[in-house]
Amino acid sequence: MLKSPLQIARQSYQPKMPKALMGHVVLREGQATQSVADQEEIQKLFPNTYGLPLLTLDSAPGEQQSDAINVGVILSGGQAPGGHNVICGLFDGLKKMNPDNKLFGFLGGPSGLIEGKYEELTSDVIDEYRNTGGFDIIGSGRTKLEEEWQFDEGIKVCKQLGINAIVIIGGDDSNTNACVLAEYYKQKKCGIQVIGCPKTIDGDLKNEMIETSFGFDTACKVYSELIGNIQRDANSAKKYWHFIRLMGRSASHIALECALQSQPNICIISEEVEAKNLTLQDIVDQIAIVVAERAKVGQNFGTVLIPEGLIEFIPAMRRLIQELNDLLANNEEFVAMEGDDAKREYIKSMLTPASCELYRSLPKAIAKQLTMDRDPHGNVQVSLIETEKLLIEMVGKKLAQMKASGTYVGKFATQHHFFGYEGRCAIPSNFDADYCYSLGQTATQLIIAGKTGYMAIVRNLTQPAAEWVAGGVPITMMMNMEKRNGKMKPVIQKALVDLNGKPFKYFEEHRADWADADMDYIYPGPIQYYGPTEVCDQPTHTLLLENA
Amino acid sequence: MLKSPLQIARQSYQPKMPKALMGHVVLREGQATQSVADQEEIQKLFPNTYGLPLLTLDSAPGEQQSDAINVGVILSGGQAPGGHNVICGLFDGLKKMNPDNKLFGFLGGPSGLIEGKYEELTSDVIDEYRNTGGFDIIGSGRTKLEEEWQFDEGIKVCKQLGINAIVIIGGDDSNTNACVLAEYYKQKKCGIQVIGCPKTIDGDLKNEMIETSFGFDTACKVYSELIGNIQRDANSAKKYWHFIRLMGRSASHIALECALQSQPNICIISEEVEAKNLTLQDIVDQIAIVVAERAKVGQNFGTVLIPEGLIEFIPAMRRLIQELNDLLANNEEFVAMEGDDAKREYIKSMLTPASCELYRSLPKAIAKQLTMDRDPHGNVQVSLIETEKLLIEMVGKKLAQMKASGTYVGKFATQHHFFGYEGRCAIPSNFDADYCYSLGQTATQLIIAGKTGYMAIVRNLTQPAAEWVAGGVPITMMMNMEKRNGKMKPVIQKALVDLNGKPFKYFEEHRADWADADMDYIYPGPIQYYGPTEVCDQPTHTLLLENA
Repeated sequence: MLKSPLQIARQSYQPKMPKALMGHVVLREGQATQSVADQEEIQKLFPNTYGLPLLTLDSAPGEQQSDAINVGVILSGGQAPGGHNVICGLFDGLKKMNPDNKLFGFLGGPSGLIEGKYEELTSDVIDEYRNTGGFDIIGSGRTKLEEEWQFDEGIKVCKQLGINAIVIIGGDDSNTNACVLAEYYKQKKCGIQVIGCPKTIDGDLKNEMIETSFGFDTACKVYSELIGNIQRDANSAKKYWHFIRLMGRSASHIALECALQSQPNICIISEEVEAKNLTLQDIVDQIAIVVAERAKVGQNFGTVLIPEGLIEFIPAMRRLIQELNDLLANNEEFVAMEGDDAKREYIKSMLTPASCELYRSLPKAIAKQLTMDRDPHGNVQVSLIETEKLLIEMVGKKLAQMKASGTYVGKFATQHHFFGYEGRCAIPSNFDADYCYSLGQTATQLIIAGKTGYMAIVRNLTQPAAEWVAGGVPITMMMNMEKRNGKMKPVIQKALVDLNGKPFKYFEEHRADWADADMDYIYPGPIQYYGPTEVCDQPTHTLLLENA
Repeated sequence: MLKSPLQIARQSYQPKMPKALMGHVVLREGQATQSVADQEEIQKLFPNTYGLPLLTLDSAPGEQQSDAINVGVILSGGQAPGGHNVICGLFDGLKKMNPDNKLFGFLGGPSGLIEGKYEELTSDVIDEYRNTGGFDIIGSGRTKLEEEWQFDEGIKVCKQLGINAIVIIGGDDSNTNACVLAEYYKQKKCGIQVIGCPKTIDGDLKNEMIETSFGFDTACKVYSELIGNIQRDANSAKKYWHFIRLMGRSASHIALECALQSQPNICIISEEVEAKNLTLQDIVDQIAIVVAERAKVGQNFGTVLIPEGLIEFIPAMRRLIQELNDLLANNEEFVAMEGDDAKREYIKSMLTPASCELYRSLPKAIAKQLTMDRDPHGNVQVSLIETEKLLIEMVGKKLAQMKASGTYVGKFATQHHFFGYEGRCAIPSNFDADYCYSLGQTATQLIIAGKTGYMAIVRNLTQPAAEWVAGGVPITMMMNMEKRNGKMKPVIQKALVDLNGKPFKYFEEHRADWADADMDYIYPGPIQYYGPTEVCDQPTHTLLLENA
């Protein structure tokens, strides 16, 4: 098997660890916890795992040992850099405690648990995946663990393998499900603990207890590298406006972090669009004004960052999409209709006047995207909408009007980009490699201590790794009740960009400068694994600002 | 001005240099040269710069000094990582020789020389651009220096600034023009020397004397980083085929190098397509076969690399494009026509039967692209054709047929990518930083020695930088006569991928394995500037194989 020189070099990288995870680790219990909201309902739903105390790990003298245990691990949902290192940390933690401890990986995500598809992760396997990107060690999947029959199948499989604990590495939904599973297993007294780990490049699994989810650091650095390179090109060729859409299901954390790293001329933050009740045309107009201002001094180039989730944060667009979803779900009349024009006319005749107006104003290709390509529930697949092309077309139209009225003199040539798959499986940055390895080691400690319904956490992340604080937080503490598919459900609150938080405030304060023709772009360059610590060990700007 | 940590760290990087460029440098003359072909015609066109000897630089004891001179430098054509370092090497070389030497940068490409737009490059300016990507220090442009009035304007500007020599940093066309300029100035005895430097990310400025053009190394490494990341994602999610188009005007060097670095499942090489007289359908069928083979073992994912220039290397496509160019140039009837369908019918009625057949077989959106968006000469802008989408659509169709006939069982979900602007202005790799700095220093030596019509070259590039061999090669030596826009012109031969060369042979030998489901991808990761030398100082696989 051929490997790149960097792959080979990274195999021997030893992740940095907090002092608290060295030697004999002890758990200190903090105060009992409450859920962030809806305490009564959450407590009722999680009688066995509600109100548990916070846990902090600490190092004590002596060696630590345990009876032999078997642990299962699951990767859930979209890839994020560092997932392999959580597993490596877990493995090393288990083996340090007792060489007879075993780690099983469930294959292809949560379905591996239900279907009994697994692989024992031995040191041969683990060593191949140290400090690597991807989730390919055992694969991931999007099956949701939500139903009792799934839980019961899981018990059977675990009993068969002698598994005492399951670690679920996932985002907010997967950790919510981890907690439901923990509660069920505790109630059934089946002796299977469940521990969660906070993963997602989107950065929206973040709260008082979780400073950042893993993978966000690496993914944002890869996207920022590319944005910086494109900006240097724009500034050299001086002929293109680059519209760059960035992955991120819903929140704009990625776009904001990339903006902080690279200082683009324009960055749209979905949460602000929603808070200010902006229309699509408002956004288009704002972009056009910056383009026109820069054109006045001959700067017919620039960069625009667009969060993938934007469309759904524009209130009028959301209403249109909702109407289309209601209209087109199981609509056989529509499906049977022949010809794009007929379909378009039909839709226009069925929409409310406001939505019809918006629908008519969209470029035809985009309007068509809104009515095609529906997911299995009949909903528009918003992530497939090429918002960068939509904005290019509408800004171009607006600029043509401005040119006609004499308020714009310039050339508007464009390039478009979408970055997502380029960063989700990158080789983890030192930060993510270290953070994830510590999360894995922390999960081991929670398991050994017999805990369940906890998420492994590592905090104090803007300090050197030695000073990081490891611990456990009851998953119920992060929950509230939210409506999902029409039903109230206990879920972990998703963290959108806080418009009063320091990262957004910094952006808000500086963005007018960044739009300016005299301002320099920042060129972050590629992630460095070796070299000066300020080059290769920095956390994200978001984390630094939040903890400043 | 805010900078990223890597930007700051790179400012103090001291490029490695060949021993021959240290201390007192002397020139050794080799044999007189001949052009690669059409010797008589080339000699007739370049009476003053033809047949010059090869030059090799060597280090001698003692200090080197010169009378004060002024030099102008021009960046020509598309950006390539390392351009700034050529200028830095030139600057440092000049200043070492005589602190009174001056370097002027002509702004915005060759037009800066004609229009007298320039900036003196002082150490303050230079220090800001050491080891950085981009051409923004003085900007670049695509104006061609071809006509006598331009040359005469250049003389005026140079006289005004006391400029003794011009360094033109560009690709094959720019260096051809550099030679024409050198010849003209020599003939006019105006005392202005002209020296070229071999730049282009495309890698097609390569011959017996030039081992590689600068920028190719960095750009390919950036693209390979992204391809590797995508492959890790494909291999983790196991649900998408990623079709990735790679920049490169014409030759497939970039696609080939990226394939050697990352081992994709499929990589198309335009030169092979042409040599084998393949049709578009042949290419589609080849891809579909690999997709179907992998699907048999449940591997419904993979990667396909597509060189940007592919379309023009498919003989039947080239004929279609030629017919469309002839048909649509200044065709006002066509422009006035209303409706896509009418235009489509008109075109079909005018094409030859074979071209019509091909035109009809193309997805409608692509067929439309072929007839819209024409360049100022009325030609199809081939680079705008989204070949990756074309292939996705046609492969999908083919697979549907195969499914119907029972020869394909699988799911074909896709993602598409185009990488170009992401790499052209990346921070140069150590290789390109070192190579370019040495090229600049070499250019200084050629100037001091009074040479003109030479290209600065640095060879032996697979050895450590200290062992590199610097010298000068008469530009006429690389020329032959080719038809351009209907006229025979002296031009530097463009190097396409050599189907008998070692890089292609290696690829040919291994590609069946790479398509295989058992084969591992290679994950190159991002360019490293620090750390183990095997990680941060390797040249391209192409260069290593060619010199193996």
